[in-house]
Amino acid sequence: MEEREIKSEDVPEDLETLGGRGLTSTIVSDEVPPGCHPLGPHNKLVIAPGIVTGTDAPTSGRVSVGGKSPLTGGIKEANAGTSFAQILGKLGIKALVVEGQSENGYQLLRMGNDGADLMDADDWSGIGLYEAYDELYDKFGEDVGVCGVGIAGEMNGANSGVAFNDVEGMPSRYAGRGGLGAVMASRGLKFIVADSEGAPGVEIRDEETFRKGRKKLADALREHDVTKPGGALNSYGTDVLINIINEVGGLPQRNFSGGQDERSSNVSGEEKAEQIKNRGGERPHHCSPGCVIRCSEVWTKQEGKDPVGVLEYESVWALGPNCGIYDLDTIGELNRACNDLGLDTIEAGNTIAVAMEGRVAEFGDGDKALDLMEEIREGTPLGRILVNGTEFAGKAFGVTRVPTVKGQALPAYDPRAIKGIGVTYATTPMGADHTAGYAIATEVMGVGGEADPLKTKGKAELSRNLQQSTAVIDSTGYCLFTAFAVLDIPEGLEGMVDTVNGVLGTDLTTDDIPEIGQQILDTEREFNRAAGLTKEDDRLPEFMREEELPPHNEVFDIPTEELDKVFES
Amino acid sequence: MEEREIKSEDVPEDLETLGGRGLTSTIVSDEVPPGCHPLGPHNKLVIAPGIVTGTDAPTSGRVSVGGKSPLTGGIKEANAGTSFAQILGKLGIKALVVEGQSENGYQLLRMGNDGADLMDADDWSGIGLYEAYDELYDKFGEDVGVCGVGIAGEMNGANSGVAFNDVEGMPSRYAGRGGLGAVMASRGLKFIVADSEGAPGVEIRDEETFRKGRKKLADALREHDVTKPGGALNSYGTDVLINIINEVGGLPQRNFSGGQDERSSNVSGEEKAEQIKNRGGERPHHCSPGCVIRCSEVWTKQEGKDPVGVLEYESVWALGPNCGIYDLDTIGELNRACNDLGLDTIEAGNTIAVAMEGRVAEFGDGDKALDLMEEIREGTPLGRILVNGTEFAGKAFGVTRVPTVKGQALPAYDPRAIKGIGVTYATTPMGADHTAGYAIATEVMGVGGEADPLKTKGKAELSRNLQQSTAVIDSTGYCLFTAFAVLDIPEGLEGMVDTVNGVLGTDLTTDDIPEIGQQILDTEREFNRAAGLTKEDDRLPEFMREEELPPHNEVFDIPTEELDKVFES
Repeated sequence: MEEREIKSEDVPEDLETLGGRGLTSTIVSDEVPPGCHPLGPHNKLVIAPGIVTGTDAPTSGRVSVGGKSPLTGGIKEANAGTSFAQILGKLGIKALVVEGQSENGYQLLRMGNDGADLMDADDWSGIGLYEAYDELYDKFGEDVGVCGVGIAGEMNGANSGVAFNDVEGMPSRYAGRGGLGAVMASRGLKFIVADSEGAPGVEIRDEETFRKGRKKLADALREHDVTKPGGALNSYGTDVLINIINEVGGLPQRNFSGGQDERSSNVSGEEKAEQIKNRGGERPHHCSPGCVIRCSEVWTKQEGKDPVGVLEYESVWALGPNCGIYDLDTIGELNRACNDLGLDTIEAGNTIAVAMEGRVAEFGDGDKALDLMEEIREGTPLGRILVNGTEFAGKAFGVTRVPTVKGQALPAYDPRAIKGIGVTYATTPMGADHTAGYAIATEVMGVGGEADPLKTKGKAELSRNLQQSTAVIDSTGYCLFTAFAVLDIPEGLEGMVDTVNGVLGTDLTTDDIPEIGQQILDTEREFNRAAGLTKEDDRLPEFMREEELPPHNEVFDIPTEELDKVFES
Repeated sequence: MEEREIKSEDVPEDLETLGGRGLTSTIVSDEVPPGCHPLGPHNKLVIAPGIVTGTDAPTSGRVSVGGKSPLTGGIKEANAGTSFAQILGKLGIKALVVEGQSENGYQLLRMGNDGADLMDADDWSGIGLYEAYDELYDKFGEDVGVCGVGIAGEMNGANSGVAFNDVEGMPSRYAGRGGLGAVMASRGLKFIVADSEGAPGVEIRDEETFRKGRKKLADALREHDVTKPGGALNSYGTDVLINIINEVGGLPQRNFSGGQDERSSNVSGEEKAEQIKNRGGERPHHCSPGCVIRCSEVWTKQEGKDPVGVLEYESVWALGPNCGIYDLDTIGELNRACNDLGLDTIEAGNTIAVAMEGRVAEFGDGDKALDLMEEIREGTPLGRILVNGTEFAGKAFGVTRVPTVKGQALPAYDPRAIKGIGVTYATTPMGADHTAGYAIATEVMGVGGEADPLKTKGKAELSRNLQQSTAVIDSTGYCLFTAFAVLDIPEGLEGMVDTVNGVLGTDLTTDDIPEIGQQILDTEREFNRAAGLTKEDDRLPEFMREEELPPHNEVFDIPTEELDKVFES
């Protein structure tokens, strides 16, 4: 970036079969000094579509973003579903590596089949992403994909995501976690606009294998109760989980001080779908073209206009029940503010909840929560606290009940009520992240087997197996939700592997998945070790081992020795 | 604290020969879970006078404070020179261990020869320590010693020291570093008032050995150029170093962006002594009774009244040149604010400098710096950022040039110009701390040998040797400044060991010092390891390896392998 130089390089042979998370983590591991300052000159931002992304494989529009995280101090991969991912794939780009730091203000990288160039982007500095995305789509045409960072990233905030366009061209699809927005902004890169016009498309080395696999996977997705049209995700979006997890007693309320509240149903997927319908909104919907599941939806204001973009389960929970807020319109506005500022909603909701515990606001005060978002926009000292995330806010406000692992805030499942997910929170190289090994599938939804959420036994193994397979799925470009189907339907999993073999010309089998996944995890864990993280960082916060969570009145009691066994066996 | 229970226990046999730092670090290591939240229920605050403290051994009025640090996340010992230390010693108290967390507001512990009791201290919450100390001395009499925490500790600030009385009864003697004030405040303990009336005095098992040793040490202190009456420290106080270190090119200016500025002489010890004299102030002076060196002084306002307490070199530098401020009156007021709020001056000055780099104020703007102190007093969001120290402020304001190791701010010697001290900053278990292995003595003052400050060779060994002997001195209760004499005069060192043998009834020799010191360091390093710190934490900040420091235009270039050898050989 300091030279404003764009170089195109052939893919080195040893990286040829990688994609998505496997590729970003390998490049970060190879090229970023683990001890470097995440916002200094030596960090890099790596953006890579999945292996099959850009093909017509179903539900495969994912893009991974990697770098050293300013939030966790370790390696980070965050991914999003967006047409931007597919455009990169169609352009034949395996990865973008953003290096150095601009000395000429913010830049916009425009790329297409005709090449790439950098242009000045300072005009968009300091304005909200909804407005910026509108202007960018006006300027570059409605078919482009847009990746960008908001005010939060410009503030070097440890809570700052990388925004991607949704299908309406709004900045509502996020590689949100771990502060990668600040990594991008501190390179001096504000936006990437990608155009697929004239793009050659993804090279598929074995069309027949690919086509067969594609069909097997699509069939599985259309068959499984969770993923099929009219199934749980399609009917109510991810927010269908609100009632389910509340029922289980694991939906964190008011900064993880309870696991259940009857008002949660006010913000459930069922309620949301009803309101969108009543207000004339559009649903179901998809995050990127070619999805079979279509779990996304467009939240719609009372007046039926000015859509916010999707309200996902995690966002509804973080900005809702975890802050004592049980009103979808308020949550919608909070989510819009996060999207507009470039914040990860999970981190932002946890930060507000911790601030509420620190008496910055009362739990349930949605107006004040919205005011807090404006503090960030204005760059006030309070905003500077909040933009740095949950652990930071906890220190600032003297709060010791801070739900973080490796500095990253916990998602929407309390590990005292659903214990396997706690093993994932603790041990994934990413900091607390449900998507890294979604034990909820098995513990609550009975997918891929069954396990009592309150029991401790076998949870280390469950988490490890899921972390391995997830690392592979995050590399393929398939949405993690395809796992619901392929964990239960062997032909679906075979189909997934077939499509990968089709694209790469490899002959992988489903038996290879654990080892490939473990290799990715090993790469990530070695980076973290070299960055100074230890098994002492693989721990849930102290209060979760000591403070009982109603209604089950359980603590997190999986022995630390079990946590350490996840990656030592 | 939660039971308001005071227990007196005999000293276990294995702790009998320990004191000061050796004792606090051993108790913390034995009793505090390394992974605990520093401000949660499991941390403890340990206060221990040195082995000879309370006797009439010269210059031995030190008290150590230990606990898990909220600033570094590791073990912490900070010590101060104060009559409070001597009162503890005379009362026959080896250590105070403060456990649990009060559920009844802030408490005051009163202790004397007649026993101890807790009383409500909420009346003093939220007010400045100068006012509180005045009231406490009115209430308890002028001969007591007072230990306390200020508003910074009450805010759970990671920059919050433990204050002790000076000989005027002002809160100007600090065990400042590492946030132990917040550890004390979060126990619910606001003040300790100790009364030596009727105290039995320190038990001396071998009076003759003690007396002989005492004389040998006193003679050495009176002979050495640095420590003798009329010598460097006695004539100009610690602030004598301003001109010396500025001359060497290692006096950090404006957040470590230069190593020399001619205006530094405006705040030198020579200038300070002159002004105190002209204003009718008192000097030289001592921090605690029985000191031969008498390097302390009472800064005096223009009107000749309202003494601030001592202005030490580190404080003058941190609040002065490092903020671009070259005016002793302004620095005096800033130091007064730190004392009043309960802040460590080194950390506070660095925090202001980083905030200035983050454009919160201009370098050199003393009025604004004073305003920032009031932000802390008022508990504003900006104050909450500043009270959490330098690294925290760096994150808040998006600054990447942040001079910290293990989260603790660097003292007044730039390691690019004086490289041995950089080894100490990097490798001491305490976070950046010059007192942990004061290589300046050898590199600049030619004490204990000579070494070129700009050369890298031999600095690992120099730092290790000094860290070992310092750990022992910090345990004896002797002021670190006795080291100037005993490093050069073998009889002085023998005398020091004789006094320890006299008190303990042991037969240690000077040859035992390295091993005893290493044992203490090993205990501390093992705690840190178990708390999750690694050799990756034994590093100076990235910018110091890359950005040249004028006037020598050097970077810190001691290889990391050398740093790792300090404790591996």
